[in-house]
Amino acid sequence: MKQIRLGMVGGGNDAFIGGVHRIASRIDGHFALVAGALSSTPEKSTASGQALGLDPDRCYGSFEQMAEAEAGRADGIQAVSIVTPNHVHAAAAEAFLKRGIHVICDKPLTSTMEDAARLEKAVAQADALFVLTHNYTGYPMIRQAQAMVAAGELGKIRVVQVEYPQDWLTGTPEKDGVKQAEWRTDPARSGAGGSVGDIGTHAHNLACFVTGLEVEELAADLQCFGAGRSLDDNAHMMLRFRGGARGMLWSSQVAPGNENGLRLRVYGETGGLEWAQEDPNYLWHTPFGAPKRLITRNGAGAVDASTAVSRIPGGHPEGYLEGFANIYTEAAQAIRDWTPGGDKAPGHLPGIAAGMAGMRFIDACVRSSKDNAAWVRL
Amino acid sequence: MKQIRLGMVGGGNDAFIGGVHRIASRIDGHFALVAGALSSTPEKSTASGQALGLDPDRCYGSFEQMAEAEAGRADGIQAVSIVTPNHVHAAAAEAFLKRGIHVICDKPLTSTMEDAARLEKAVAQADALFVLTHNYTGYPMIRQAQAMVAAGELGKIRVVQVEYPQDWLTGTPEKDGVKQAEWRTDPARSGAGGSVGDIGTHAHNLACFVTGLEVEELAADLQCFGAGRSLDDNAHMMLRFRGGARGMLWSSQVAPGNENGLRLRVYGETGGLEWAQEDPNYLWHTPFGAPKRLITRNGAGAVDASTAVSRIPGGHPEGYLEGFANIYTEAAQAIRDWTPGGDKAPGHLPGIAAGMAGMRFIDACVRSSKDNAAWVRL
Amino acid sequence: MKQIRLGMVGGGNDAFIGGVHRIASRIDGHFALVAGALSSTPEKSTASGQALGLDPDRCYGSFEQMAEAEAGRADGIQAVSIVTPNHVHAAAAEAFLKRGIHVICDKPLTSTMEDAARLEKAVAQADALFVLTHNYTGYPMIRQAQAMVAAGELGKIRVVQVEYPQDWLTGTPEKDGVKQAEWRTDPARSGAGGSVGDIGTHAHNLACFVTGLEVEELAADLQCFGAGRSLDDNAHMMLRFRGGARGMLWSSQVAPGNENGLRLRVYGETGGLEWAQEDPNYLWHTPFGAPKRLITRNGAGAVDASTAVSRIPGGHPEGYLEGFANIYTEAAQAIRDWTPGGDKAPGHLPGIAAGMAGMRFIDACVRSSKDNAAWVRL
Amino acid sequence: MKQIRLGMVGGGNDAFIGGVHRIASRIDGHFALVAGALSSTPEKSTASGQALGLDPDRCYGSFEQMAEAEAGRADGIQAVSIVTPNHVHAAAAEAFLKRGIHVICDKPLTSTMEDAARLEKAVAQADALFVLTHNYTGYPMIRQAQAMVAAGELGKIRVVQVEYPQDWLTGTPEKDGVKQAEWRTDPARSGAGGSVGDIGTHAHNLACFVTGLEVEELAADLQCFGAGRSLDDNAHMMLRFRGGARGMLWSSQVAPGNENGLRLRVYGETGGLEWAQEDPNYLWHTPFGAPKRLITRNGAGAVDASTAVSRIPGGHPEGYLEGFANIYTEAAQAIRDWTPGGDKAPGHLPGIAAGMAGMRFIDACVRSSKDNAAWVRL
Repeated sequence: MKQIRLGMVGGGNDAFIGGVHRIASRIDGHFALVAGALSSTPEKSTASGQALGLDPDRCYGSFEQMAEAEAGRADGIQAVSIVTPNHVHAAAAEAFLKRGIHVICDKPLTSTMEDAARLEKAVAQADALFVLTHNYTGYPMIRQAQAMVAAGELGKIRVVQVEYPQDWLTGTPEKDGVKQAEWRTDPARSGAGGSVGDIGTHAHNLACFVTGLEVEELAADLQCFGAGRSLDDNAHMMLRFRGGARGMLWSSQVAPGNENGLRLRVYGETGGLEWAQEDPNYLWHTPFGAPKRLITRNGAGAVDASTAVSRIPGGHPEGYLEGFANIYTEAAQAIRDWTPGGDKAPGHLPGIAAGMAGMRFIDACVRSSKDNAAWVRL
Repeated sequence: MKQIRLGMVGGGNDAFIGGVHRIASRIDGHFALVAGALSSTPEKSTASGQALGLDPDRCYGSFEQMAEAEAGRADGIQAVSIVTPNHVHAAAAEAFLKRGIHVICDKPLTSTMEDAARLEKAVAQADALFVLTHNYTGYPMIRQAQAMVAAGELGKIRVVQVEYPQDWLTGTPEKDGVKQAEWRTDPARSGAGGSVGDIGTHAHNLACFVTGLEVEELAADLQCFGAGRSLDDNAHMMLRFRGGARGMLWSSQVAPGNENGLRLRVYGETGGLEWAQEDPNYLWHTPFGAPKRLITRNGAGAVDASTAVSRIPGGHPEGYLEGFANIYTEAAQAIRDWTPGGDKAPGHLPGIAAGMAGMRFIDACVRSSKDNAAWVRL
Repeated sequence: MKQIRLGMVGGGNDAFIGGVHRIASRIDGHFALVAGALSSTPEKSTASGQALGLDPDRCYGSFEQMAEAEAGRADGIQAVSIVTPNHVHAAAAEAFLKRGIHVICDKPLTSTMEDAARLEKAVAQADALFVLTHNYTGYPMIRQAQAMVAAGELGKIRVVQVEYPQDWLTGTPEKDGVKQAEWRTDPARSGAGGSVGDIGTHAHNLACFVTGLEVEELAADLQCFGAGRSLDDNAHMMLRFRGGARGMLWSSQVAPGNENGLRLRVYGETGGLEWAQEDPNYLWHTPFGAPKRLITRNGAGAVDASTAVSRIPGGHPEGYLEGFANIYTEAAQAIRDWTPGGDKAPGHLPGIAAGMAGMRFIDACVRSSKDNAAWVRL
Repeated sequence: MKQIRLGMVGGGNDAFIGGVHRIASRIDGHFALVAGALSSTPEKSTASGQALGLDPDRCYGSFEQMAEAEAGRADGIQAVSIVTPNHVHAAAAEAFLKRGIHVICDKPLTSTMEDAARLEKAVAQADALFVLTHNYTGYPMIRQAQAMVAAGELGKIRVVQVEYPQDWLTGTPEKDGVKQAEWRTDPARSGAGGSVGDIGTHAHNLACFVTGLEVEELAADLQCFGAGRSLDDNAHMMLRFRGGARGMLWSSQVAPGNENGLRLRVYGETGGLEWAQEDPNYLWHTPFGAPKRLITRNGAGAVDASTAVSRIPGGHPEGYLEGFANIYTEAAQAIRDWTPGGDKAPGHLPGIAAGMAGMRFIDACVRSSKDNAAWVRL
């Protein structure tokens, strides 16, 4: 099977998430990175690209140049990964989509609702796929959880508890030149949401993905604890799902002792599930009235939904990169299966709809909090 | 040292919490149970009392009889434990307090705000101590946590996460003759709060005890998931503490896989703490920027506040009963130290103030939820 | 029900295990401590006794005095707890047994094989019960494990892994005046075994209790890591059980990070069990081919064997003291049921047989190790 | 940087470890798989190769053909991965080594001591590198542990506990056509060791790698529990290290509830370390006298030795494949740095010496067990 030719926008030397996307694209061997507009200046972009072994001719100074040039090559890229700060997502995605190049975009969708609306239209009109890397949905045990809920193993869902605490903004690293902290605490680059945009969207997406439910309204209380910070670094909210389930969501970047503590708990009329991202190969299932069971990736009790996206036997831990790679591998499948005019988000792939849901979530959080945590409908 | 003569109201054959109080009173040997009005009828009360080895003459048909008779004996009880359903607490406590008999009362304080107000006055006027068994504050590692927060080891507190999930009301055991479920789901006996009264008060109390903070206002969304149930069996709320800290509280009796999942997490400007009731000998402490540390009861890192209420070496687990016994033992000390007109709630002992705070908490939860989770000041 | 009148030998002010026995005897209310020879001198003994509220007349200077005096009282003790260093066990036990006073003795049985043999005869000839406090067998989840193995839930047992690491002798506290360390590292008071006598016997006993198997032979490699220490502080051994199962046993007092890490794992043809003393309310069960299940004390999956010795609901942790109290409570039952000439070790109670097995275990360890870890039959 | 051209021997459709090697070689992008002799017949080999996208001309029917053909190409492979059953390792490795093609070989080294000795000579004479994939040494927290021991953070090492339990041979899958089980239970293909060869070697290697110690002698008791099985499926052994440390090692394939339970614990005069392969991002460190600390990959407390082989931030779990990839990436570095006549196993890379140590370990286990677990020197 031939590899898909991939380009990348963003992900230069200092970035974290660009490297993640590159590894994720390599793990199952479906993509070959051949072009990039990796940094904000031509010089840096070329330097970063050459460090990755890219042909200097295909290291571009801007995504516009790259889109145009690659669209004109017979061996041009078939897909592009967009891994810039949020405020660049929309314009970059549009540049490639309109040229029929598939887009794999990091989340959240954009930094503003206006950009999101424009991008939504662009996706609708494009002759190409748009995939949003809500990577946590790629974890096998999350697929298992989704399948178990869908199969009715928990009964009707009553309560959803989801949280995503981190601690890296406990101090104020944005004042010390930490680039990740600078743009993530800057409304101009991140958008209106701080923790809710960066990680709250993951929590929201995961809760909805696993339960199949949609948030109908939420009441959010957002805080900025870091001195001089203008975006929330901690957020508390109550959720009401369509159909009657209720939930809570906590996102935080100021909770010492939490590295990347995304955690989901779902309770229904006949059972409960618990999952934690830092120990992703385990899913705890309690059928009410029976002992708690530990279901492991590719272990006893694992269903097709999880084994299909697992590579190695139980007890041999897969991690964050493999979960991320599952999104890339399913994107590769979708790209190969794609025919102009076809379904643009087949299977489990998160796409523009998930992206818009995330934007509405951020917007609702911010509006609710400004209104003293009044309920806001999504 | 002579044992304190103890009576008990409630706690007959079917009860759970009465047995707990009896063991707790025995563990350190400070009390001798010598009288009881254990059940709601004279026959049952006598049967229950004799099963416990009480003198039949001191098995009473009602708490009024008991208060009067014991007050008239030279060897009458010096203290009484009240372990009835909530709606009996106030009248029973008053009967003993006005006769100068110390009261050790289960929580929540009463079933109505009116009763609470009346009891508050009775305590103020009494020549006796009033202790409320917020037993979870008796755990050594909770004392350790309190001491560490007070010593500034976390810096200024920013975020408090507290939860108390259980699963025993996932079905509707109150329809199947389970007495514990019957009265706890009955507003006439429990009061206006379901899960918030039964366990939410523990969570609220524990968060305040450890952090030394008070809830200024809360926004609560209460639910009744059990068919035909009129009291909340699940509650979500956001908390705002005086001084700027924020929190979330979740109480549930319908979360399968949670037996008695009281859990507290506190995050400050320089560190975090985590504690879970089901594994009570462990306290996790993260000084921000350093590895997480596991502080164990009577182990390295334990401070006087926790070792003073520990009995046996680290690695030899103490449990729920020993934590409860710490309240009894401190009550014994207070009773022995007590002189008429003295301080009525010395040291760590929860008393009428904690009881009133709990009642205001329940009331605020119910009022907030009825008003679509509007903020209510406590 | 009337309380059983109890005396105590050893357990004065500085001792650890005496206090444990006293609490254990009180938890369920079956015993009243009324007499003691608590320390090695009359003065200390009286001081310790009075601190416990004993009648000064019943604080004795030696166990001989106590045995004689109490046997002569109409209200004399019915049972005695022996909680001295090991070398005193035999003589003390004999003094009471020959007077028809039941003995509850700490382990190991004695400090020498000669003493053990003499005591075995004394027990055989006595008109009284002899109970050895192998307290870890009192844990509910150990009872559960035993019942599950007996019911064939694991199939034929193949492999037994048992370990008991501690770290308190990592340094040389015996040189710093720590009394617990002094006598436990002194062959004259402890006997020939160091870690194998103090804790290895617990591990051996527990493995046999749960599996119902007997060790046929063992090969042991004992070490003294502490400078100047003459008894083993770390021991490795391989076990061969009658019937074909094989095992390993590790005991250590020099393993930093282990407080009291007794842990048992049992594997059979169709399933496995895991239990750890520091988290005693949990039992992990894997039916081969199915997910691991977490069985909790008084939770779903708990069988009569464990619920019968539990006091409070699942999720309310019981601990070391409650497990120890189960031995006392069963001893009370046995004492009440006892008739001269009757069965001396009914039910689950460990007695002289378990004590002799433990002595043979220690002896085999020491002999094997001296012979370069050659196999020694028990 | 140009990718290294890689071939593979073994690893056809049904194999597990071949796929692992391929992913590991891709994760950091240093290798391109361009040729293979993947299966035992030309037809299967070609089918497997084409499924992987190999040029049909470079899918060979045997490793001999492949070695000869690739050595003759200008664009021939620079390195080869050998992932066959053990009995093929030696001959395959020799075929490539003698042609100056670097070899990356799965463990154990060979199936017989004779083959091992021959291969050792071949490696010594070759103008190429020989790397043995003791992949568990690639885990970042294992590197951290090694560095901490080397830095003296535990003091002099006293006790090493290492175990590697699995459960996949609890039944007899080798009778049901499970290929992995067939060859691993067949002495002709696996060699003299069953569990000791397949996983015991990993445990032995890991213990030595982390502690820097060598096993001087061992006493092993090997068992075959599976009906009709001729190789050990469970092994118990005691270890004596040069310099005075002592240890135990357990390997098992018949321990239900253990998927891939490699676990190492190391105790020294001043501290202890614990690590478990199934939760590989955590390292527990106890400085004696202080609380246990949880050191996480790329978290606070992580040293250069571990961060240098980590890709993503703490809390984003890396797993088995990334640990394996570290071996490949270090092999790539070594290949690029290699000059004829240079050092053949630079840095942390396990090579022929580790392979020979593993073979002596297997041989010692088997000989000791045949001699009733007598001590055998390595």
